Amino acid sequence: MQDGKLDEVLRIARQKGYFWPSYEIYGGVSGFYTLGPMGVILSQDIKELWRSMFIRPFGFLEVDSPSIMPYRALKASGHVDNFKDPMAECRSCKAKFRADHLLKDAGINAPESASAEELEAMLNDNSVKCPSCGASSWSVRPFLTMFETNIGPYEGSRGFLRPETAQGIFVEFRDLYEINRKRLPMGVAQIGKGFRNEISPRQSVIRLREFHMMELELFMDPQDEGAPEPPSNVKIPILHEAARESGQPELISPAEALSKGILKSKWLAYFMYLSFRFVQALGVPPDRQRFYEKIKGERAHYSAQTFDHEVYLDDLGWVEVAGLAYRTDYDLSSHSRESGVDLYAEERRVLSTRKSVRLIVDELRKRDNWQELARLKPEIREDGVYLGEVRLRDSEYKIIEEVEKEEVRKFVPHVVEPSYGLDRLMLVSLYYAVSEREGRRLLSLPRPLLAGVVGVLPLVSNDDMIRKAREVAESLAASGFTVIFDEKGYIGKRYARLDEAGVPFAVTVDGQTVEDNTVTVRERDTWKQERVNASELSRYLRERGSPGLELTRH
Amino acid sequence: MQDGKLDEVLRIARQKGYFWPSYEIYGGVSGFYTLGPMGVILSQDIKELWRSMFIRPFGFLEVDSPSIMPYRALKASGHVDNFKDPMAECRSCKAKFRADHLLKDAGINAPESASAEELEAMLNDNSVKCPSCGASSWSVRPFLTMFETNIGPYEGSRGFLRPETAQGIFVEFRDLYEINRKRLPMGVAQIGKGFRNEISPRQSVIRLREFHMMELELFMDPQDEGAPEPPSNVKIPILHEAARESGQPELISPAEALSKGILKSKWLAYFMYLSFRFVQALGVPPDRQRFYEKIKGERAHYSAQTFDHEVYLDDLGWVEVAGLAYRTDYDLSSHSRESGVDLYAEERRVLSTRKSVRLIVDELRKRDNWQELARLKPEIREDGVYLGEVRLRDSEYKIIEEVEKEEVRKFVPHVVEPSYGLDRLMLVSLYYAVSEREGRRLLSLPRPLLAGVVGVLPLVSNDDMIRKAREVAESLAASGFTVIFDEKGYIGKRYARLDEAGVPFAVTVDGQTVEDNTVTVRERDTWKQERVNASELSRYLRERGSPGLELTRH
Repeated sequence: MQDGKLDEVLRIARQKGYFWPSYEIYGGVSGFYTLGPMGVILSQDIKELWRSMFIRPFGFLEVDSPSIMPYRALKASGHVDNFKDPMAECRSCKAKFRADHLLKDAGINAPESASAEELEAMLNDNSVKCPSCGASSWSVRPFLTMFETNIGPYEGSRGFLRPETAQGIFVEFRDLYEINRKRLPMGVAQIGKGFRNEISPRQSVIRLREFHMMELELFMDPQDEGAPEPPSNVKIPILHEAARESGQPELISPAEALSKGILKSKWLAYFMYLSFRFVQALGVPPDRQRFYEKIKGERAHYSAQTFDHEVYLDDLGWVEVAGLAYRTDYDLSSHSRESGVDLYAEERRVLSTRKSVRLIVDELRKRDNWQELARLKPEIREDGVYLGEVRLRDSEYKIIEEVEKEEVRKFVPHVVEPSYGLDRLMLVSLYYAVSEREGRRLLSLPRPLLAGVVGVLPLVSNDDMIRKAREVAESLAASGFTVIFDEKGYIGKRYARLDEAGVPFAVTVDGQTVEDNTVTVRERDTWKQERVNASELSRYLRERGSPGLELTRH
Repeated sequence: MQDGKLDEVLRIARQKGYFWPSYEIYGGVSGFYTLGPMGVILSQDIKELWRSMFIRPFGFLEVDSPSIMPYRALKASGHVDNFKDPMAECRSCKAKFRADHLLKDAGINAPESASAEELEAMLNDNSVKCPSCGASSWSVRPFLTMFETNIGPYEGSRGFLRPETAQGIFVEFRDLYEINRKRLPMGVAQIGKGFRNEISPRQSVIRLREFHMMELELFMDPQDEGAPEPPSNVKIPILHEAARESGQPELISPAEALSKGILKSKWLAYFMYLSFRFVQALGVPPDRQRFYEKIKGERAHYSAQTFDHEVYLDDLGWVEVAGLAYRTDYDLSSHSRESGVDLYAEERRVLSTRKSVRLIVDELRKRDNWQELARLKPEIREDGVYLGEVRLRDSEYKIIEEVEKEEVRKFVPHVVEPSYGLDRLMLVSLYYAVSEREGRRLLSLPRPLLAGVVGVLPLVSNDDMIRKAREVAESLAASGFTVIFDEKGYIGKRYARLDEAGVPFAVTVDGQTVEDNTVTVRERDTWKQERVNASELSRYLRERGSPGLELTRH
């Protein structure tokens, strides 16, 4: 692993206002980061891209549910019992660490499925030293990694900060299914904060106590998933259960992986393909991605099959940016059981229908004897519709077909879930965007990321030019652009500042602008400049900023 | 007050997927609401409108800081000591209520500044009955309305869920000031969740335990605010301290209110004007708005002057949707004291400058004797720049002026804060949007709200038309629209559903579409239909959906 690049990325992230550790004036609190102005825009752009790929094309829904959840809901979901990490406590100084991390740092790889007892034995048998006091006597117990709080003024009204946004969707399934007019498949997304009270957070934004998630819960009929066809002409690297022994991922199309039974759901196959494209659109090359299958014991308690979507970073190795899980009916069934409220979907199968005739009276009226005819009961015969012995014209009636008898099958929908860590996506996106050109740092984030940010620079700091530049800035702001106005210093230095911040375009106002209303637009990655009329600027930047997904960029 | 409309609004909000009480399958937990798919879009549109009015035109910054804050930060901010409500406990059944609400419901108006002891006396003296058991013996004590939690595995590491997003900005002032390159005024916004552990929440989304906020902290030099001129030609209703006795707000321009000393800050005056326009753009008529000044004892502990921006609802009376507070240097000074880290801004005043000459060697080289000349030291005389006795041409040199001596004034910036409750804004926006046309319910939200949502309806449910309608839907989704696809039922009923949901446009695909690629676009408020070519649809909807702010709508 090559060291140093991550530090450089984190330095830029802080200096340019992407993100930095929170509460430093109070000595810092591990596991909390603040997104600065550029971070907020980047995160919004990533969310928008995700919506454009995972939500809107399918007509899926998005919700926003509370972060605080009552005890019963998370007891039902299994989190109260299972959302735990093995905590090692030094018997000497009482310092606390994650047992598996201590072992890993000591060069010992514990299986993810190891119990607290097994981990304790491994720590003590291997005389792993306490990083705080040097002793090597440990006790290990599970630690519930949910933040707990009390709701309202009565003691014992326990609540937790949600460990995932998904549970806020499951508990509202009834309303959502109604709003979706009882149609499946139904996708429900949520973008929001997740919380995990880590024992000892580290690695900057990789392991946070409060983080941003983008989750999609796809509800479907397991007998008929209703998924789009996964492509057969795109291969993605899957380190599936069988391939894990060799350590080499299999390059295989989602369609083939599905037909071979490597993937247990068609939606899962389709989402893996989408996920691959999405992460690529964020600037991560295909050969730096893989889907890592979690085997039984490693998977979350709710999952029948899970793939971690991982990205390779030189400094850290493989980093999980998403989890794709086949949650089956686990969650809805659990909430049904605990709440006593049935959560199910219905499939209606029509067994027989009844046809009836509706007369179009306005048409019928054109006949002389229409009043006589209208008194008769319409009759459907093989060759047409009759009133008495008069066969009606097509325009004079409509045949209505109604359900006479139907069969309703009730079932608990199954769920497939792609779940993204937004902070990690930002990090890997910045990581692959950091580059150099003629010895200068560039942050070459792929379009459409940051396409709404533009620098506006008066070439010289005189009153006329500043006034004109402010006009240009105001007009761009009114068109929805976030403008970075920079009037001080040599122009080259100001360009360099914007390049390093990742701003895709800089607009320079110079002497000519005052004369003919044209400005110079300079592009970040190529340093090419073009003269554009200020009145065309907004449209020009929109077109250059969002040229569709650049999926072949790397 | 007219009853009934609020119920109707809440019914529509639930049925159409705007919002509803969370966790109903578990019996509900007061004070928590879930935003459904329409609610998420409406909230995003309101956020976007807010950014377009309060952030982008000024080049302000936006951040996203953690919800969990450490004890020390909120001790410093005064919240640990002051963020309390008077809690009345029934001595008989131990039920707990807000003391001031109990009194209000009993027809007794307690001053907002009343102490716990005073409220207890008022409850007991007036024999106010316990709503739970009917007894009338009370004890009142302050209840800390912050949600508390423990951070990490060590006991005693107290944290709270933030009561306002503002504190996450103040504690990061140093980094933000650097990122803004030490320029004031500097605006820093945050949109995110706020938390308040209410004793007994009620009134749907008016009083929530977890809510959405949009806050802007404007940092400025109190000696020179650098604010835009507040308008003198727009009058806003201000129920200021002097006017409160009469109960009648004064209709006065922000400029005049500032010059008369009614408002203590120029930024405050400007933001009140913006706030008035903003809430109007959400559909609230000017005569249903007022700014209510909080007097000492009613104001939050940090504020030197506060106005509640209120909206009148027939069912509830005046409802606060925003607070505009002049927080002075309270927060930065408090965090400086508690953390030991100086938080200040600098104003540099140049006392003297020094001029020096930079030769443009490429130009000088054009002279035959340039090498001789270049050896000499340039000298600035009254009539030009000389090398020895040779006066240089303008193109051959540049005069650089550098700071020789400067004075640095350090000061703690003052803060003016407009702070919005997004859930309440959604409610008042829906409230004023509910209307009727020919006996049918409409949700006439003003543009640009929901402008990105469009219904797509195949006129008849046959294969050809559904296929074509799906094409239209996909193309709109690819252009960023949220498409509600509805294929079932009579067309009139489908239009009615969309009208009531607030969807501004419905696109109908019919027999003619298959022939000439045109569709019918029907507008929600007027029911007018227009035939548009499907290839022009996206542009047509964008233009019709965002015709600029309709500030004169009411």
